[in-house]
Amino acid sequence: MKIIVLGGDGYCGWATALYLSAKGHVVTIVDNYLRRQWDHELGAQTLTPIQPLSDRLRTWHRLTGKTIDVAVGDVCDYDFIYSTVKAIQPETIVHFAEQRSAPYSMIDRKHAVFTQVNNVVGTLNVLFAMREAAPDCHIVKLGTMGEYGTPDVAIPEGFFEVEYRGRRAVLPFPRQAGSWYHWSKVHGSNNIMFACKIWNLSATDIMQGVVFGTRIDAMGDDSRLFSRLDFDQAFGTAINRFCCAAVIGHPLTPFGIGHQRRGFLPLRDSMQCLTLAIEHPPKPGEYRVFNQFEEIYDISELARKVQKVARETGLNVEIKHLENPRREAEDHFYAADHHHLFELGYHPAHSVERELEIMLRDLIVHRDRINDYRHALIPDIRWDGRREKVSFLPTAPRLDLSIPSVPSGTRSFPDASRTDSVPAASRAAAAHDAVDIATH
Amino acid sequence: MKIIVLGGDGYCGWATALYLSAKGHVVTIVDNYLRRQWDHELGAQTLTPIQPLSDRLRTWHRLTGKTIDVAVGDVCDYDFIYSTVKAIQPETIVHFAEQRSAPYSMIDRKHAVFTQVNNVVGTLNVLFAMREAAPDCHIVKLGTMGEYGTPDVAIPEGFFEVEYRGRRAVLPFPRQAGSWYHWSKVHGSNNIMFACKIWNLSATDIMQGVVFGTRIDAMGDDSRLFSRLDFDQAFGTAINRFCCAAVIGHPLTPFGIGHQRRGFLPLRDSMQCLTLAIEHPPKPGEYRVFNQFEEIYDISELARKVQKVARETGLNVEIKHLENPRREAEDHFYAADHHHLFELGYHPAHSVERELEIMLRDLIVHRDRINDYRHALIPDIRWDGRREKVSFLPTAPRLDLSIPSVPSGTRSFPDASRTDSVPAASRAAAAHDAVDIATH
Repeated sequence: MKIIVLGGDGYCGWATALYLSAKGHVVTIVDNYLRRQWDHELGAQTLTPIQPLSDRLRTWHRLTGKTIDVAVGDVCDYDFIYSTVKAIQPETIVHFAEQRSAPYSMIDRKHAVFTQVNNVVGTLNVLFAMREAAPDCHIVKLGTMGEYGTPDVAIPEGFFEVEYRGRRAVLPFPRQAGSWYHWSKVHGSNNIMFACKIWNLSATDIMQGVVFGTRIDAMGDDSRLFSRLDFDQAFGTAINRFCCAAVIGHPLTPFGIGHQRRGFLPLRDSMQCLTLAIEHPPKPGEYRVFNQFEEIYDISELARKVQKVARETGLNVEIKHLENPRREAEDHFYAADHHHLFELGYHPAHSVERELEIMLRDLIVHRDRINDYRHALIPDIRWDGRREKVSFLPTAPRLDLSIPSVPSGTRSFPDASRTDSVPAASRAAAAHDAVDIATH
Repeated sequence: MKIIVLGGDGYCGWATALYLSAKGHVVTIVDNYLRRQWDHELGAQTLTPIQPLSDRLRTWHRLTGKTIDVAVGDVCDYDFIYSTVKAIQPETIVHFAEQRSAPYSMIDRKHAVFTQVNNVVGTLNVLFAMREAAPDCHIVKLGTMGEYGTPDVAIPEGFFEVEYRGRRAVLPFPRQAGSWYHWSKVHGSNNIMFACKIWNLSATDIMQGVVFGTRIDAMGDDSRLFSRLDFDQAFGTAINRFCCAAVIGHPLTPFGIGHQRRGFLPLRDSMQCLTLAIEHPPKPGEYRVFNQFEEIYDISELARKVQKVARETGLNVEIKHLENPRREAEDHFYAADHHHLFELGYHPAHSVERELEIMLRDLIVHRDRINDYRHALIPDIRWDGRREKVSFLPTAPRLDLSIPSVPSGTRSFPDASRTDSVPAASRAAAAHDAVDIATH
């Protein structure tokens, strides 16, 4: 299949390009290297040193005999993306070419506006390019589970059937995102749904959970093929950040009470899932939503998991809660469907523990590099607009001990009554945070 | 109260500025005159010749002794809007400064991108300016009933309580907009809801129905104070367009089957409603949604109403259905709440018929001017991307006769079973159009 991977130089994008190429697909990467530029702005660095894209692709060709093409340019430049789509005539476009960090979008007005304009216009351009030059192409768009927020009911895959005042209807499930970035993804999802309706395009909108992991099998042990890995406050996702911290003995730092629950999946499973979506495209005019994650975890529980595996590897590390720089519920109901990918044949590759072992082994060789950037582990970007390092909370870690942990490896929904075991004081704090925006 | 009216040179904005000034509020208009520029692009003109803003304001001052200030600039220019908000320290900002035409947004990619970027960035800028310079200010934002689309259940005011898989929650009501413009309003609503949550701002988001009418009382009979009035395919709203057509004997032209149902309200009532929202602000941190319309009508029924009143005024005019340039359901369930404004004391001013009489009288003096621009009455902007005049449908008008009309002046919901009286053939056509985007 001819596939364009937009944003193919990034963390997930690069892994996806290799994975698809290894499977025999004809892959073209489109990227403008903006992600590399943000490292300089943030004073951070990918932990795994990455080569220039052209070098990585040469290595790939030498090792496998396979060629991945590159088109360097910006999806916000319509002439570029239109002519690329027209020339390649892809059957699938996988769209990762967005600003993907919530904290980055919350830095200030410029970053908020940049994130929303970049992500909205990029996606509109891809949709118009498809309409004009490749109307039968299937777009696989990376959204995020964060589009849904943390509603007090179960989260279906994109749509739900409800009864309201005596009538039943299937409606888009309401979105309640938690950052300018997450809202940019909602705006994008809405635009894609509309384009499918009016132009008969087909789309799979992937509500992806938080991804973690240093590698996929296609990279082998050749570090020149490794994906970038971020551990800074803006682009580092929770488990990646915890593992980097563990390696240098820096405390693992859940935010606030730390019972935020999210869906997670290893990088290698993300590739598997995307490929299932690509190889089983929807019908013309169909807009479908897949929730893409393996398990739901509580952030404090994850920190304990990383702590445990690190200890087995000889790394002793504390868990210390941080003042929460975000405005979010820290303890809430959370249950979400993820049937569609399992129906298509998704088989999770590893347990979280096994993946954590691999990660810690990969990361330990970069201990000095993490130490050089250890300042990046404590956030200073706050949702209220201030830019000021957050402090450690003196008491929060104790709360963890009273929380029964949800067994991992199960795919059942968390027990709704679970929050009742949280001490009253912390529940009050969480309730204070979960501002009621629905007073009318 | 100190009030900034963003977009105060436009159709609703100008009327709002006069209405609030007449009530004794201290009003500043912010506008960049972009709306006047679009006339040239579209080869259209406001029917009622309007003076330069500075002349209109001098007239207002001479006639009433009241002063309305002006700040000329673009809400997308942050330095401008921030310094304006900081200098004026408004208690309310009424935000009309958006590209407000669905067809304009559907012309091509450039117009779609312009509409979404202009509307999203303008609103983000206003929110950031409030946070930085006037955090206690109340923003009254013009949304549109079109954000909701035409779901198969009743439309509440912004939020609804539903039961889903055994749990109940109050959730934002899902939006299913019908153009890039309407989606830009949804994006804006979502961003405002989030800003209220994280920064404690207060907002009233007005889901306004289709507005019609040539004047409000504050304008008196001085034509120098009249608001602009558009009757072209892009900016002309349904009743305004029908009345202009009636005046020159041009057929009234519902699109397709013509049973699209929408909420409508006269311009003078729109002013009354906005003022109720302004004078009864929400609490800090509260994001509330008002559905602002008086009655729900079916487009064909409205055409018949205009035809009837025109006939009484001595104007004979046919109703001829046009091929629908849009992608929309042409016959559907529609019921929407509008309790909040009535609870605040909204009293509709006139019956539609009475308002139509006033309009026709105002318009008839401009008969030659409408004739000069009669080409603007037949649309050529199509939702499928083509730009080609639509044709008259040979048979559709007959279908109307079999449809019982909903009595006007009632505020009850339309009868859900009503569509059953539509002949099967036309129901099938409507069903074909209402694409099922919720297959997954």
